[in-house]
Amino acid sequence: MKKAIVIAGSRGIGKAISDSLESLDCKVISTSQKELDTSNLENVKEFTKKNSETDILVLNTGGPPGKKFSEINEEDWQKYHNQLFLGFCTILQKMKINDGGYIFVITSGVIKEPDESLIISSAYRLAFTSVIKLLSKTYAEKNISCINIAPGPFNTDRTKELGGNIEEIEKSLPMKRLGEPKEIGNFVKAIVEYNIKYLSGVTINFDGALSNYVL
Amino acid sequence: MKKAIVIAGSRGIGKAISDSLESLDCKVISTSQKELDTSNLENVKEFTKKNSETDILVLNTGGPPGKKFSEINEEDWQKYHNQLFLGFCTILQKMKINDGGYIFVITSGVIKEPDESLIISSAYRLAFTSVIKLLSKTYAEKNISCINIAPGPFNTDRTKELGGNIEEIEKSLPMKRLGEPKEIGNFVKAIVEYNIKYLSGVTINFDGALSNYVL
Amino acid sequence: MKKAIVIAGSRGIGKAISDSLESLDCKVISTSQKELDTSNLENVKEFTKKNSETDILVLNTGGPPGKKFSEINEEDWQKYHNQLFLGFCTILQKMKINDGGYIFVITSGVIKEPDESLIISSAYRLAFTSVIKLLSKTYAEKNISCINIAPGPFNTDRTKELGGNIEEIEKSLPMKRLGEPKEIGNFVKAIVEYNIKYLSGVTINFDGALSNYVL
Amino acid sequence: MKKAIVIAGSRGIGKAISDSLESLDCKVISTSQKELDTSNLENVKEFTKKNSETDILVLNTGGPPGKKFSEINEEDWQKYHNQLFLGFCTILQKMKINDGGYIFVITSGVIKEPDESLIISSAYRLAFTSVIKLLSKTYAEKNISCINIAPGPFNTDRTKELGGNIEEIEKSLPMKRLGEPKEIGNFVKAIVEYNIKYLSGVTINFDGALSNYVL
Repeated sequence: MKKAIVIAGSRGIGKAISDSLESLDCKVISTSQKELDTSNLENVKEFTKKNSETDILVLNTGGPPGKKFSEINEEDWQKYHNQLFLGFCTILQKMKINDGGYIFVITSGVIKEPDESLIISSAYRLAFTSVIKLLSKTYAEKNISCINIAPGPFNTDRTKELGGNIEEIEKSLPMKRLGEPKEIGNFVKAIVEYNIKYLSGVTINFDGALSNYVL
Repeated sequence: MKKAIVIAGSRGIGKAISDSLESLDCKVISTSQKELDTSNLENVKEFTKKNSETDILVLNTGGPPGKKFSEINEEDWQKYHNQLFLGFCTILQKMKINDGGYIFVITSGVIKEPDESLIISSAYRLAFTSVIKLLSKTYAEKNISCINIAPGPFNTDRTKELGGNIEEIEKSLPMKRLGEPKEIGNFVKAIVEYNIKYLSGVTINFDGALSNYVL
Repeated sequence: MKKAIVIAGSRGIGKAISDSLESLDCKVISTSQKELDTSNLENVKEFTKKNSETDILVLNTGGPPGKKFSEINEEDWQKYHNQLFLGFCTILQKMKINDGGYIFVITSGVIKEPDESLIISSAYRLAFTSVIKLLSKTYAEKNISCINIAPGPFNTDRTKELGGNIEEIEKSLPMKRLGEPKEIGNFVKAIVEYNIKYLSGVTINFDGALSNYVL
Repeated sequence: MKKAIVIAGSRGIGKAISDSLESLDCKVISTSQKELDTSNLENVKEFTKKNSETDILVLNTGGPPGKKFSEINEEDWQKYHNQLFLGFCTILQKMKINDGGYIFVITSGVIKEPDESLIISSAYRLAFTSVIKLLSKTYAEKNISCINIAPGPFNTDRTKELGGNIEEIEKSLPMKRLGEPKEIGNFVKAIVEYNIKYLSGVTINFDGALSNYVL
């Protein structure tokens, strides 16, 4: 039986992945923000002491509220540097991924097309994208695949919190709807279920044809 | 029962996709190069007359032999312009994809990191990537997903034909092996099986952590 | 005295480059579309017979009128394949660039963010971007620099021909104005004047902060 | 007379830019690491109190020594987060760039093609690339241009410090030589001298045709 750890797996896309891995008969440890606050490095280190290895790791986390560049203070930068970047690096430095395992990172479409109101998220999630890209080459030697999923607008609490009229947003999207967390849940499930390993070191836009960049 | 058309589905990655779709109980029409030569536009038009609609379309084709830029003649350019670009455009102009369907394009890692000896393939496959990216937005309105898969080095006849010592190549790869066509076959199968639709307008590097570009 | 050849140098950005190179005391051969129609390969070959070498080559050309994908016919594809791609490849195959020279390619912002109404241009200009990227490595051995400039909306006849209310367009742009051809003219001039050679194998968005892609 | 501030302008590429701006008759304030340590945020804030506005700002800084991912400790992350990212954000939050001005950022080729031994630099410089891309749109309203230059291997102390046999490195490069800081110095000078403003929101690979990514 495979072991999976899903960070921020209590709601939204994280929960959908958690559920889908459970349906594969994995033993899933899924953390809520209360159980593991990735902006708190001590908290992260404690967690990795208790959970020192896994077969499947899903690095997921919420983002900060929208803020203009001029309004971001040092505390914001430091907190989300931890939450969106350094907490994940710490987990990867301290947790063993078993041979033949998987690391899924859930970032955001803003890594490719940064968003003015989500500047913190755009920057730090992109920084972590660079890290996971590099590490994918080392992990490859142990047959561990690293897959970065960059979701566009999804039907999650997060999207609602960011505000805006959901109906209006949906009308503006190519598919006239938000993505459903289950779609990413099933995507992750399928990769694991079919033991697809050669998909690694990749960032996958998962945005219903929304982005405009050619590649 | 869904209908699938797989161009160049008689061997390699095309065959693996064809087989995997058949295992999903799709009715698969799979063409060999003899049955449909996409470098011959008349041939393409005839084919689309007989096969005027489908649920799933897989646009796959072999590439040209390696050639230096200085050695490529006008005939080469014209032939592979048809085979790698215009033949596919013609199919998309003339074939109806049914609502809720899929278009999978199999290109190559050389679209992102072009290869000197595969200059024709690098250029025209990239041109088609631009076309499918644009069309993904139109197809989205009909709930049709467009997914461009860009394979790295795979265990196919094509790879052997391109020459080089396969063992040496494998040693140089992050995963110490070529990709297996079945991995892409299963990937395509999973997308269809789980009805994942929000993955669209995307180019997916499928290269075992080989590429160096961050995104 | 350096020799420069500027294709489509009779108006717009091409003319601005032509003028700026003349101000550097280069001997500039600047062609209008009448003098050299790059969609006509015979015409191109004749031209390269008469102009078999140069120090500076500027590959510039107009684009096709806007057309929907469904409306593009085979003649369109073939004509603009020649004009936007194969004509330029032919020139590079037949014309000698002298050691220490420059190749400037003027493409378009649509190579990175393709435009639905400019699908032909988006695709073929991107294909040529792949070619020049590859060739930059070979030319580097002779100290020849290859620079691909991808302009956004500029104040040219072309922009006016594509239609739309220019004032409205300007209001929507980050700088509230179109680019001035002279800005690219001066850019090219400066590279040559200061003999900057290490800038090569690069695509430079020249779009007044319009594009949204991070890199 | 224009005012320019060049961070880390006492040697290497920073010095070349500083010198070239002086030759344009700018009043240049060029800081050494002793004078302004961008890893020290208090230091940065003091600096911006004394230097609260400028016409031209050059954001340049050295990078960390090479280190494997597993060897990077929390102190390293925090220090270089400040030096490569947060210090620059702080400067931009606190320093006024005068209308019609310029911001040049000197990053590195590792933002596009990350380097295993320069993982910190790859990640944080890329994060800052996202920030400057976003800000370029706001600055555009004041006719301020933001230009990110991503150098490949240059003939600087930094390159020597990173080790390796310089002669061997040179042989492996497309141009068989390192870039000369003066080339970037002249490039920056030319942009300012010719008042080129429409080049903004762009990352410019400046690497002698070294990188392999198509765009």
